[in-house]
Amino acid sequence: MENNNQKFFMDIAIEEAKIAGLNGEVPIGAVTVMNNEVIAKSGNKMQNLNNPLMHAEIIVLNETSEFLINKGISIRHAKVDLFTTLEPCTMCAYAISLCRIRNLYYAADDPKGGGVNFGSKVFEQGTCHHKPNIHRGLNRKISENLLKEFFKVLRKK
Amino acid sequence: MENNNQKFFMDIAIEEAKIAGLNGEVPIGAVTVMNNEVIAKSGNKMQNLNNPLMHAEIIVLNETSEFLINKGISIRHAKVDLFTTLEPCTMCAYAISLCRIRNLYYAADDPKGGGVNFGSKVFEQGTCHHKPNIHRGLNRKISENLLKEFFKVLRKK
Repeated sequence: MENNNQKFFMDIAIEEAKIAGLNGEVPIGAVTVMNNEVIAKSGNKMQNLNNPLMHAEIIVLNETSEFLINKGISIRHAKVDLFTTLEPCTMCAYAISLCRIRNLYYAADDPKGGGVNFGSKVFEQGTCHHKPNIHRGLNRKISENLLKEFFKVLRKK
Repeated sequence: MENNNQKFFMDIAIEEAKIAGLNGEVPIGAVTVMNNEVIAKSGNKMQNLNNPLMHAEIIVLNETSEFLINKGISIRHAKVDLFTTLEPCTMCAYAISLCRIRNLYYAADDPKGGGVNFGSKVFEQGTCHHKPNIHRGLNRKISENLLKEFFKVLRKK
């Protein structure tokens, strides 16, 4: 996949993050891609679905699995790439491993809640049986600013 | 909660594990409990839903959140206990933390895939912001035997 394409898909993830923010969610977005096509895209929906597990990454992984039912293949064998605007948490990182995502692209780091470079360092553990190729930093500043602005407004309320 | 009740709920988790096994799933079952009542129960459904994220624990957490929508409260504030027949994986352990489960009961240990005592040791990390009370070993042998029998049959196929 060329760099231009990666930027194109991460821009869509940023758009999803913005929409999530407008809906009162922490502005994080994710996109799954197969054969250079978007399969699923979503922002966080924890508030709107009253479910703390509805992280953007989980939603797009679930939707991708559902999409693949008709094709009779498992996401585990489908060579899916995932783009997300923030370093995945521990839950999402392990979900990404369970789905055998091929390439993981994430924009900003998350020292407080991340599970890739921080905390559990999920992909470095012996209990992790698939590690994606990891690409960090595309659209980092844009994602960081979205999150900063969101929490600044939240604190003022 | 008395010991008899804990045994009662873990027995239900074992029943769910058995049903999962009969449906071609790895035999693992889970139950959520609130005010001494079962809210959700399920076995693994990865094969049947074509989704590697459909671990029994995730299913019952999702169903519990859904159940609570009508009551207008979040699972995070509902004092929910979770019973599962195998040590939760890294994804499920962090999901349990995100849902602020009060008590986690699990039957058998999982050195190869567990995320509580093995691998990521999710609840011990600085990026984990809620740790449930953990109770291990109830129905351990029954759960271990279910899993052993399942994989023995699988290897013969």
